[in-house]
Amino acid sequence: MNFPRTYFLKDIAKIINGKMIGDAEFPITGINEIHKVEVGDITFVDHPKYYKKALNSLATTIIINKEMEAPKGKALIFSNDPFIAYNKLVAHFSQFEKANQMIHPETEIGVDTHIQPGVFIGKNVKIGKNCLLHANVTINGPALIGDNVIIHSGTVIGGDAFYYQKRENGYNKMISCGRVIIKDNVEIGANCTIDKGVSGDTVIGQGTKLDNLIQIGHDTVIGENCLFASQVGVAGTVTVEDDVILWGQVGVQKGLVIGNGAIVLGQSGIGKSLEGGKVYFGSPTKEATEKMRELVYITRIPEIIEKLKK
Amino acid sequence: MNFPRTYFLKDIAKIINGKMIGDAEFPITGINEIHKVEVGDITFVDHPKYYKKALNSLATTIIINKEMEAPKGKALIFSNDPFIAYNKLVAHFSQFEKANQMIHPETEIGVDTHIQPGVFIGKNVKIGKNCLLHANVTINGPALIGDNVIIHSGTVIGGDAFYYQKRENGYNKMISCGRVIIKDNVEIGANCTIDKGVSGDTVIGQGTKLDNLIQIGHDTVIGENCLFASQVGVAGTVTVEDDVILWGQVGVQKGLVIGNGAIVLGQSGIGKSLEGGKVYFGSPTKEATEKMRELVYITRIPEIIEKLKK
Amino acid sequence: MNFPRTYFLKDIAKIINGKMIGDAEFPITGINEIHKVEVGDITFVDHPKYYKKALNSLATTIIINKEMEAPKGKALIFSNDPFIAYNKLVAHFSQFEKANQMIHPETEIGVDTHIQPGVFIGKNVKIGKNCLLHANVTINGPALIGDNVIIHSGTVIGGDAFYYQKRENGYNKMISCGRVIIKDNVEIGANCTIDKGVSGDTVIGQGTKLDNLIQIGHDTVIGENCLFASQVGVAGTVTVEDDVILWGQVGVQKGLVIGNGAIVLGQSGIGKSLEGGKVYFGSPTKEATEKMRELVYITRIPEIIEKLKK
Repeated sequence: MNFPRTYFLKDIAKIINGKMIGDAEFPITGINEIHKVEVGDITFVDHPKYYKKALNSLATTIIINKEMEAPKGKALIFSNDPFIAYNKLVAHFSQFEKANQMIHPETEIGVDTHIQPGVFIGKNVKIGKNCLLHANVTINGPALIGDNVIIHSGTVIGGDAFYYQKRENGYNKMISCGRVIIKDNVEIGANCTIDKGVSGDTVIGQGTKLDNLIQIGHDTVIGENCLFASQVGVAGTVTVEDDVILWGQVGVQKGLVIGNGAIVLGQSGIGKSLEGGKVYFGSPTKEATEKMRELVYITRIPEIIEKLKK
Repeated sequence: MNFPRTYFLKDIAKIINGKMIGDAEFPITGINEIHKVEVGDITFVDHPKYYKKALNSLATTIIINKEMEAPKGKALIFSNDPFIAYNKLVAHFSQFEKANQMIHPETEIGVDTHIQPGVFIGKNVKIGKNCLLHANVTINGPALIGDNVIIHSGTVIGGDAFYYQKRENGYNKMISCGRVIIKDNVEIGANCTIDKGVSGDTVIGQGTKLDNLIQIGHDTVIGENCLFASQVGVAGTVTVEDDVILWGQVGVQKGLVIGNGAIVLGQSGIGKSLEGGKVYFGSPTKEATEKMRELVYITRIPEIIEKLKK
Repeated sequence: MNFPRTYFLKDIAKIINGKMIGDAEFPITGINEIHKVEVGDITFVDHPKYYKKALNSLATTIIINKEMEAPKGKALIFSNDPFIAYNKLVAHFSQFEKANQMIHPETEIGVDTHIQPGVFIGKNVKIGKNCLLHANVTINGPALIGDNVIIHSGTVIGGDAFYYQKRENGYNKMISCGRVIIKDNVEIGANCTIDKGVSGDTVIGQGTKLDNLIQIGHDTVIGENCLFASQVGVAGTVTVEDDVILWGQVGVQKGLVIGNGAIVLGQSGIGKSLEGGKVYFGSPTKEATEKMRELVYITRIPEIIEKLKK
């Protein structure tokens, strides 16, 4: 998430009640968790195991729970609890706004876009032209929706990421401040759930079509002209390239990459990244021809046992 | 879909801007895609591979992208793009109506039927007597709902079919004009999705009970007194006969037939039609006893390898 | 379900039009189906096979379809159709109330709890403090929701149990009168379904976090600090102990127990109770290491066949 304007180290340190290590006027332009950081961002690290990764990341300011010198060209903020400090900062810049009407009055809606009754649209949502939002859709902002997009009833855009840190008192939630971006000509079926990014964007690429009851996790990026059949579940931070077809009830674990034009047969469980241009099947997934061969081999075990007896 | 009255070749040719081949007064009584055509229907074909099938189907008028003589007793309409022409015709006869209220004023609702708050009912919906629609249900017409039907919250009846044609500019949607028909004494759980037929009907048979989060695809016909547990997904154009039991998370591929009284155990993936009266398990599905035997055989592989070593 | 006050055998016999066997003043304090009965409860039995179980249960009054002497310290009500009599009694004490507004006026809502637009709350719901109910959530009472609970859009709390008795005229529904209890610090994702107990309680333990599109069946009790990923389905009357992690699309059959700290990998199908403290995988589920070994063994079958040929 980018801040609405540039802030300075002193401003941010004050918000989170942390100790500045660096120039008070050091500029900070946004906040992101470690997987999404860019130059100008502030991020956090709270475990020595990840100090190096955070300090060497693109982030130029890091909230950290050890006092040390700032790396060259960067700034630090010392905090006893960087996770809480990060969450506080996110909350500061993306405060949940209680709604008292179904459609936020500042929603930008393009020409020829129609919104059926029962649709909720929260703060910071922009919808293109010639879209159709069916009854009882929910869009929690921030979200950007392109042109010619159809969203079917009951679908929820912009739920929070399923992202917790285990702490002594149970799971603590990482507050989501990312967006959902839905490109032109996308159609999303009924009762789907598309979570917002934790700090980055969840993206559904142009021309992609989703059937009903599909889950798309936080910060996942889906390419163009993909087809996902009903009840597919894609975890967070997945990259699905273009022209990928996932048949019904396929599951994709977090962080994977599914290559261009891959086709995955129904109920497959994807636990490793998949090369494009091939057909896959099984849980865990293999190339479909290999998996089919395996299924035949299994049927030959009784015959093997017979032979061994002789 | 039947037209509201009989039209003639000249009327239809004019709507889709096509060239008549046949008697201008040739009657056309409805429109259906090729799998659902009946006598009097107009359908379309746009690939030489399927010309014969379309011309020999029950359809009496065919939109086709090759100029030829009409078969005896039939008429043709020549169009450079029959898919687009077909879609145009569907749109003409089943135009989506923008709603500005939660329940369409022309909805027919039987005695002792109760509709909870937050329910949306679109155009062309008829509901029988003694039904209960829980809060936040969505019914997009056209739909026919029988007597003593219970529909739980969040369920979406009559979403569009997941049906696209791949074209140069990406996936083009086949516009759905079919109905959902829910027979007497059906109960449908929460957050289910029952898609409308593309041009025919999606049917849930009398006395059938669906649990939560179930997907039923377009033009699928479910028999009487079936039980589907939670998260079952049935693709489009499936036939499920009577007294079938599908346990949780079962998936059924498109176009299959599940015979009377079949029982399918949890998480099974059905890729071939199943004979009735038997119990099935696995993905892909086998008879349960056979599958169970296989699972035991697999555990004997280490012992086989041991024996071979000796 | 406990009755609002103590009733007597004569009162209950009158409501269900049954024949008292016992003291007319025998006290009855609640109604429960056989799996949930406590002292003071009335329950029913309609098959000789289960007579003994019902008569020896904690229930102190039993609706039964055979005239016999009451066991010592208990009472009976004779009815030709105990199932119907039981349902009639449940309906009497927990009559579905038609709502005409989105939030029942008697709903108890704690301080700092915020309810977004489009939320439906039925009769007999109590919500703690500092909760957030996102847009288009449905809560059918009776339900008790603790403090600091977040429920995402489209989720349905308190749907009826999927619980039918097969009878000559098809499936007859067991009317649900149980509650949903959601403890403090629980977060429930979007488009989930949490069914109410048939006569007892469905419970989500303190600090437990559910992702999107998850099904929790009737009378299931989930412990503290569990994590369930998207599209998990848990059937009815399951016990999940504390700190259990179920990854995406896992299915759990009815009546099982999942022990403390068990971790179950994605798409696993749990058909037997699982000991705590271990990692599981597969459908049906095994310990993950054993399952992984099996998957490797399967790949060795071609090599075994080769060897046998020699």
